Amino acid sequence: MSPALFDDLETPSALVDIDRMVANLDRMAAYAAAHDLALRPHVKTHKTPELALEQLRRGAAGLTCATALEAEVMAEVAGDLLVAYPPVDPRRIERLLALEAGVRLTVGLDSPEALRDLARAAARAGRTVGVLVELDAGMRRVGVPDPDAAVALAREAATSPGVEYRGIMFYPGHIRDRVEMQDAALAALSDRLGLFLDALGRAGLAPRVVSGGSTPAGWASHRIEGMTEIRPGTYIFNDRTTAAVGACAWDDCAYSVLATVVSTAVPGQAVVDAGAKALAREEIRGVDAPGLGALLDRPDVVLKTMSEEHGILDLSGTTWKPRVGERVRIVPNHVCVSVNLHDTLWGVRGEDVVTSWDVAARGH
Amino acid sequence: MSPALFDDLETPSALVDIDRMVANLDRMAAYAAAHDLALRPHVKTHKTPELALEQLRRGAAGLTCATALEAEVMAEVAGDLLVAYPPVDPRRIERLLALEAGVRLTVGLDSPEALRDLARAAARAGRTVGVLVELDAGMRRVGVPDPDAAVALAREAATSPGVEYRGIMFYPGHIRDRVEMQDAALAALSDRLGLFLDALGRAGLAPRVVSGGSTPAGWASHRIEGMTEIRPGTYIFNDRTTAAVGACAWDDCAYSVLATVVSTAVPGQAVVDAGAKALAREEIRGVDAPGLGALLDRPDVVLKTMSEEHGILDLSGTTWKPRVGERVRIVPNHVCVSVNLHDTLWGVRGEDVVTSWDVAARGH
Repeated sequence: MSPALFDDLETPSALVDIDRMVANLDRMAAYAAAHDLALRPHVKTHKTPELALEQLRRGAAGLTCATALEAEVMAEVAGDLLVAYPPVDPRRIERLLALEAGVRLTVGLDSPEALRDLARAAARAGRTVGVLVELDAGMRRVGVPDPDAAVALAREAATSPGVEYRGIMFYPGHIRDRVEMQDAALAALSDRLGLFLDALGRAGLAPRVVSGGSTPAGWASHRIEGMTEIRPGTYIFNDRTTAAVGACAWDDCAYSVLATVVSTAVPGQAVVDAGAKALAREEIRGVDAPGLGALLDRPDVVLKTMSEEHGILDLSGTTWKPRVGERVRIVPNHVCVSVNLHDTLWGVRGEDVVTSWDVAARGH
Repeated sequence: MSPALFDDLETPSALVDIDRMVANLDRMAAYAAAHDLALRPHVKTHKTPELALEQLRRGAAGLTCATALEAEVMAEVAGDLLVAYPPVDPRRIERLLALEAGVRLTVGLDSPEALRDLARAAARAGRTVGVLVELDAGMRRVGVPDPDAAVALAREAATSPGVEYRGIMFYPGHIRDRVEMQDAALAALSDRLGLFLDALGRAGLAPRVVSGGSTPAGWASHRIEGMTEIRPGTYIFNDRTTAAVGACAWDDCAYSVLATVVSTAVPGQAVVDAGAKALAREEIRGVDAPGLGALLDRPDVVLKTMSEEHGILDLSGTTWKPRVGERVRIVPNHVCVSVNLHDTLWGVRGEDVVTSWDVAARGH
């Protein structure tokens, strides 16, 4: 840690406001505890073992990973990992089975092919891997589409050597309304989940784990009958999308990209040195929030477009007149894909840079 | 180099078809030579010194960089670098001035602030840095907007110690039509450039270097009066956008991401393990080409959406029935932002993996 002030950092750099992050971590931990839900944070957002440790210290039951590398990196700080991603491919299975024997490993999957390959390899490795049957809760991305398929897969998991049936999981990524408009979507999700739970119960396969919850829908998990666990990721930092749907306040955004104004030559706009290779291009869907990011201290100043190394700030609605060389902090629409573009996160308090972390699980 | 076949690679992995790449390199080198244009490839696309060397071996006059890291990495293979990005910020200037003294360095800029900071630092360092005045050719991103501003900046560059006025540059990123529809845009560009050239000539500041040219517009550079140099980047690999605008054939796409089908649970689609963190999310603007990427061997099978680690293939228009575990190769819409997500490029011939390169200038 040599740099001590923003002025010492190059741009673009990824900043984490430590006090805001701590408040975000505490808030979700308190929510989960209050509703008796296991909290299993998804590490895809930060990919940083030191930050996973902060989640575990606050009572997280374990961690959620998407990639083999995330699992390998997080196995150094956590004894209980869920890989919430179909473990298809012999090389992926091999890496997961090579995790230290003390790690309690569970994977989510939605096909007999994935289950059989995993079970065979686990049995051969003398290991027992937990299985959550993933179901499609309405997002239409992955997950078995109906209760019969869930029962069939759960039964096969329950009776195959090498694996252990532990329950079900889903990802409610289709719930993109503002939080106060989510009642109908949550009721539909509850109803749909109920059909799966009934069918599994009748088959003698009642799930011990019922795992769900993105960050925006996570806060409503207590309203969904039967859930035992949530896997929010974004909540540690939040982002412009989380704020736009009302799942956090703007001042809860803990992550920003420090950038320098490099050009004001074209009237009505200012160009900063953070574009798609520092912020990532992601539009906000579901609610009306145009633009690709906004200034932390001036959320009305929006990135109207970007290219690889250029972000274009729209100055049409502000009296602010940025100078060439001035520094700004930008909150991206989607923090997870922005963090993934950086090798280092700088922990800041006010304008002091107090620590840094390697994004150790970036890449594949 | 241990892996020898696709089957040995993990997914997602970034593949480069070497024979196609070589043909792409040869074609652009021949175009530049035929029209007496200096070719200064932009390394942002590959960020890989070994591939820059292939460009230099084919007669490239030097390289174009955007970031200080790209310049540092490329200084090891090239003696002539253009940093086509405003060198604003003391730390960025410091890194550029620290490049080996033998490197002939030129920067593009569009403001007196950027020019003065650079000139002062260069003079202090006992170095002379070339300057290209960047002008806005119609894209409205960066660049001085009118000939008077160009003359003023060129004059200041010509008379400041530490810097040397070398010419002008522009980036025609606003030309997004299909190539056969670009006549009007090219004529407008030619007219606009003519105004700048006339004004600079009258002021005794006729540019020695007139540098322009993206990949799609690059092929039309001989139709723009006064150009001396082109800076295409994408042409080494091409991508779905380049093919969609007709600036290459589909079979000229040399880059793809190897991915595994991980789920077919939701009817009508297949899910692969390459999403926004392997391909990058970028829509094609300017021409009608929906979707976020397409299969190399089945360009009619399009990625209809993606999340971080999931790409969703639309199967509604194909009789192909992918199996869980099957491998596919995906051509992204925009290759530069996809390469930037990978640490390694695998060089392939057919299904043989014959070499690999580190993406050494990835990051900041």
